[in-house]
Amino acid sequence: MWTTILCLSIVLFSVVSQDVYNNVVKERNDILHRELDMMLGNDIELCDSEMKANDIIMDLKRQEIEGGFLEPQAFNLSKHFFEYKDVVKESQLFKLIQKMPKGAILHAHDTGLLSPDYVLNVTYLPDLHVCFEENDIRLLFSTNTPDETCETQWQLMKDARYSSGNVERFDSELRKYFSIVIDNPSEVHTDVNSVWLKFQQYFITTGAMFGYKPVWEQYFYDTLKACRDDNVMYIEIRSVLPELYDLDGNVYDSVETAVSYKETLDRFMSDYPDFYGAKLIYAPLRMVDAKTVKQYIEIAKEIKRKLPDFFAGFDLVGQEDKGSPTKDFLAELVEARWELDYFFHAGETNWYGTSSDENLIDAIVLGSRRIGHAFALTKHPLLIDEIVKRDIAIEVNVVSNAVLKLVEDVRNHPLASFLAQDLPVVLSSDDPGVWEAEPLSHDFYVAFVGVASKHADLRMLKKLALNSLYYSTIKDKDKIAHDFEIRWTKFIDSVVRGNVFY
Amino acid sequence: MWTTILCLSIVLFSVVSQDVYNNVVKERNDILHRELDMMLGNDIELCDSEMKANDIIMDLKRQEIEGGFLEPQAFNLSKHFFEYKDVVKESQLFKLIQKMPKGAILHAHDTGLLSPDYVLNVTYLPDLHVCFEENDIRLLFSTNTPDETCETQWQLMKDARYSSGNVERFDSELRKYFSIVIDNPSEVHTDVNSVWLKFQQYFITTGAMFGYKPVWEQYFYDTLKACRDDNVMYIEIRSVLPELYDLDGNVYDSVETAVSYKETLDRFMSDYPDFYGAKLIYAPLRMVDAKTVKQYIEIAKEIKRKLPDFFAGFDLVGQEDKGSPTKDFLAELVEARWELDYFFHAGETNWYGTSSDENLIDAIVLGSRRIGHAFALTKHPLLIDEIVKRDIAIEVNVVSNAVLKLVEDVRNHPLASFLAQDLPVVLSSDDPGVWEAEPLSHDFYVAFVGVASKHADLRMLKKLALNSLYYSTIKDKDKIAHDFEIRWTKFIDSVVRGNVFY
Ligand SMILES: [Zn+2]
Ligand SMILES: [Zn+2]
Repeated sequence: MWTTILCLSIVLFSVVSQDVYNNVVKERNDILHRELDMMLGNDIELCDSEMKANDIIMDLKRQEIEGGFLEPQAFNLSKHFFEYKDVVKESQLFKLIQKMPKGAILHAHDTGLLSPDYVLNVTYLPDLHVCFEENDIRLLFSTNTPDETCETQWQLMKDARYSSGNVERFDSELRKYFSIVIDNPSEVHTDVNSVWLKFQQYFITTGAMFGYKPVWEQYFYDTLKACRDDNVMYIEIRSVLPELYDLDGNVYDSVETAVSYKETLDRFMSDYPDFYGAKLIYAPLRMVDAKTVKQYIEIAKEIKRKLPDFFAGFDLVGQEDKGSPTKDFLAELVEARWELDYFFHAGETNWYGTSSDENLIDAIVLGSRRIGHAFALTKHPLLIDEIVKRDIAIEVNVVSNAVLKLVEDVRNHPLASFLAQDLPVVLSSDDPGVWEAEPLSHDFYVAFVGVASKHADLRMLKKLALNSLYYSTIKDKDKIAHDFEIRWTKFIDSVVRGNVFY
Repeated sequence: MWTTILCLSIVLFSVVSQDVYNNVVKERNDILHRELDMMLGNDIELCDSEMKANDIIMDLKRQEIEGGFLEPQAFNLSKHFFEYKDVVKESQLFKLIQKMPKGAILHAHDTGLLSPDYVLNVTYLPDLHVCFEENDIRLLFSTNTPDETCETQWQLMKDARYSSGNVERFDSELRKYFSIVIDNPSEVHTDVNSVWLKFQQYFITTGAMFGYKPVWEQYFYDTLKACRDDNVMYIEIRSVLPELYDLDGNVYDSVETAVSYKETLDRFMSDYPDFYGAKLIYAPLRMVDAKTVKQYIEIAKEIKRKLPDFFAGFDLVGQEDKGSPTKDFLAELVEARWELDYFFHAGETNWYGTSSDENLIDAIVLGSRRIGHAFALTKHPLLIDEIVKRDIAIEVNVVSNAVLKLVEDVRNHPLASFLAQDLPVVLSSDDPGVWEAEPLSHDFYVAFVGVASKHADLRMLKKLALNSLYYSTIKDKDKIAHDFEIRWTKFIDSVVRGNVFY
């Protein structure tokens, strides 16, 4: 009798405990799936062929991540970008992402998009003069020897190159001015300011050379070509719009520089009608006073009047930690905000609670349509709410943030948290040429393999591409979305057929 | 007439635009203040003397941050911990934080709390034998030469030391086994696994030496003393509870080891009745099978029966990326969850979407009262909600995460986002002795100056201390809170009088 009761109670207990266990397992799996269902990409439904492509993509992705999980020192993406940028290009997944239609580049700076090899080629053009100074060089196109002072002496680049005795070495030394890539970044770029100095030096050194109107236009033309080659169909490009010059002594102001962009774009579009186009964000330097910002705004308005379809909006650029905070120009920017769309850089910092951190608030209250970087956003729960409420896109540039020393290991990039919450993210590349990256493929690859969840799949990739169209200033969104779908279907087909890797 | 109208409309416009501007400024400041008002510490009201102390503290904090903001390479806390750990001890703010009552240590491992100098002293005890092997040493107390095999030969440590010819060099070589601090961490500790190997080696090397019962008890006694010296009043200590031995050949099992802790605690409390006490979290190694976990659970239950007031709960330890995921033991842990309180390590990883990342979900569904690290939590918006809803504390160990290579620059530590959201955070130190940190002061200092907002002040410091009491397993919270307040008042008084720096 007692034995029966005892047995029964054991059976009862184990039934109950099995139930409890099942409930816990169910709760666990529910949470897991609810989290996956809220990630960026959750609203994308894959068709049959997309699901097949997804299996191929996820196999490749899992191989890379699982290899790293077992042997962290073998995982490329937790190293410095300079170490892995070329290696990863050999991977099948990278090649696939390169072929993938990625939509638009919405955050990039005009003279930072092409590779140092391209820039080196520019130095072969006639009439380029060079002045070698202690730690830098100066470059200027001119029919005669330039009048500007030079610590040593101005020479024709051609003469300097061939009198050097070793053209190869000369070019390889010269090329170093056109890239911030070095062999030992962790020893040389020890803090954010030292790498920013080198980064800004690139723009100073190349500035006068690129300001030569024919070079300026060709660089833009070739940028559009490079975007197209990287399967980007549209770009909103930021420019400080410097004065341009030609060999006849003409000088062109910012408005004329904008016009020369528009004319170049028209030429490109007639050569490559399958490209979707480009718009301009006027983004002058922020390290100025309020009066100068007022002048910038007037220039912006004039460009908008002159090129209403080409002009997208206004921004301020330069290292936020060092430049004037946006609040210094609040009055000027508030006044112009009904006439100009804003696309402010903000929160490209890890100094929590400082003036550069607060730029995020100003960008939002000024009604920015998108925010550049917003790296510091995870420290601002209220601003995250505002960004969702106002549907402000965040232009995330993972590789830039790694190279410019905001974050070492991309797995710690705040983008992971943005993706988990399905914030309005667009991926972009900032100045890919300066660190020898492809126009957009490296950023997609790094975000997909190094930052996003191991479970994030083709739906996330597609959504990121679609976001870049949705958050652009393109008026006819239906048309570009339709164009995109055609390209996407072709891409999926080539993945499923295995043609994508060749 | 026209002029008047024109003037009027300009005045009108500028009144309107002034209004608009004022509204934007108001909105900006509202957001800023609402964010400050929701940070951890928002519910603390400072009295007059606390406000005076706060001014002193914030002056010191601002000096450090503003200096770094202007010259990032001068900012200690974005460097490697090994570089700045001693330098910062000289700062007034560090000294102040050291004197500050910090409440409890709720996440620390028993044999990782004391400095390598302390451990070196242990090697001066009689009867310690040493065996030098290729890349390691073995240490064992024994009356006679140990029977265990040795690649070379067992010697008395005393003999080895004095026959070395240079005691100073001998000791300095020996000390290296008791610390993971090295001069060039970024070159040697290139990934998370290589530093974990070194870290685990410390526990293996010291294990047999600490397992000698008199040393074991003295180490714990001196740990309590070190906590008290660092103005910590209570500790919940994790232990794998190894077998202990003595010179008479007795061996003590895990339950007896727990008893020896309790007896040591009683001795300490009678010597230092102003200390509040300690409890034990039994935390054996996770790299085992389910059957072994079942045995662990039985041991935990027995300790709980035997020492109900001393036993706090159960956890599993070891590198999560390499150990078995918690879900492997789900059935066993579900069954025991009404009898044991859980304090699981979880999400001490930056591998998003992997098994170690998912440990966070298991920790929550298993009803953990607190979670160790939860480093990956920012990637899990739903889990953040659950943690808030269930009031589960997060035991954050900033210095540990930096030293063990989860994050390079502490300004990117997820704690910043936890503090911004006022999540239930307690600060702790994990294994401070192994990286030569103070029991808790370095973690408070780094969190306050390097991670939290520039605006985070004394209210955050006080709240972090109070949280450590609130989220402890102490039954009489009123009593310890009262004790804390007395100490706190004394501390504030000494800050205001300026005595705190001496
Ligand atoms: Zn930018
Ligand atoms: Zn731990």
